[in-house]
Amino acid sequence: MTYGAASTIRLYLVLDPDHVRGDALATARGAIENGVSCVQLRCKTSTDRRFVTMSRALLQLTRHHDIPLIINDRLDIALIVGANGVHLGVDDVPVEDARRVGGPDFIIGYSPETDAQIIDAAGAGVSYLGIGPIFGTTTKADAGPALGPAEFSRRRALTGLPVVAIGGIDGRNAGLAMAAGADGVAVASAILGSNDPAGAARSLSEAIQRQR
Amino acid sequence: MTYGAASTIRLYLVLDPDHVRGDALATARGAIENGVSCVQLRCKTSTDRRFVTMSRALLQLTRHHDIPLIINDRLDIALIVGANGVHLGVDDVPVEDARRVGGPDFIIGYSPETDAQIIDAAGAGVSYLGIGPIFGTTTKADAGPALGPAEFSRRRALTGLPVVAIGGIDGRNAGLAMAAGADGVAVASAILGSNDPAGAARSLSEAIQRQR
Repeated sequence: MTYGAASTIRLYLVLDPDHVRGDALATARGAIENGVSCVQLRCKTSTDRRFVTMSRALLQLTRHHDIPLIINDRLDIALIVGANGVHLGVDDVPVEDARRVGGPDFIIGYSPETDAQIIDAAGAGVSYLGIGPIFGTTTKADAGPALGPAEFSRRRALTGLPVVAIGGIDGRNAGLAMAAGADGVAVASAILGSNDPAGAARSLSEAIQRQR
Repeated sequence: MTYGAASTIRLYLVLDPDHVRGDALATARGAIENGVSCVQLRCKTSTDRRFVTMSRALLQLTRHHDIPLIINDRLDIALIVGANGVHLGVDDVPVEDARRVGGPDFIIGYSPETDAQIIDAAGAGVSYLGIGPIFGTTTKADAGPALGPAEFSRRRALTGLPVVAIGGIDGRNAGLAMAAGADGVAVASAILGSNDPAGAARSLSEAIQRQR
């Protein structure tokens, strides 16, 4: 990763416009100014054209703050806007292909579902892993049951890649995720669903800081 | 277009695995052997991973027969497998971006919805247009009402780009579409929904030939 791996994913915001209370860009800005170190844009229901427009607007913001923008699922949209990377799941385009097309400096996040997928990820060209749901989540309907910190730790230990914990993380349990071996925590609703997104980001950032 | 424009889109098969009666690859092979000059792969319901796998398999076939493979909607999948081009609609990634990322020899098809979009297409980097539905169609739920040959002709005259007519075309009305100014006809159900896809392709090819 051009942006030094583990510290980049310390506080990782998954920005899903469908789950933002107010304006998505203003929410992202407030969160970035209060400790978010990386933003992933996830647009599951918008048109591709709108996804491109949103990505461009967000990239201006993340570049201004010198943090990476990762595009969920869509390699083409990441390439078109010049985002820093893409985040892929097991049903998305293969990691090896994204690495070949995206080049060596392109950030590729991956959400493995099995031990074998965790173990094989580094060799396939993955930059960091998202492992979860560590706690119960309502943002992602297909996320499956919570792993819990112990199972998260076991999976985390299978790889030398940086790992961001995801799923049901907020200011109260972020420290538990870090203590379980995460290099960072990914959040959506804890920030997007808050009445005070900037304050929620600050609480998360402080909770992570205390645990390090 | 690396493949000489108008003749390439003469008989254009839109291969949608959801609408194929039998095996998609075998159907495509039979159609190609009986006059299909270009294949577009449209996967609206499969995972991206499956879309990549299907694209790779189909590309082997189209390369063997020296005809282009166009990927519907997804620039990333076209780039990953090395397909000849992509077909975009007005809600997809912008044509200008696809041209920049895809390069000068990449085929970019576009389905405009307004006169202005038809007129602007050449300047934006479009290789050919799909205009329709010229007749009534059941394959594409969001296709809108049939234009009819006269309105198709009017739209076709707005651009110097090659135009493929689409929507409800079969062996009986393909000649009407060509007479209305189309450089070729795009079909899905006339071939995919037939008990004899190879025979349907042959009938279409002959109907086009008679009209030229």
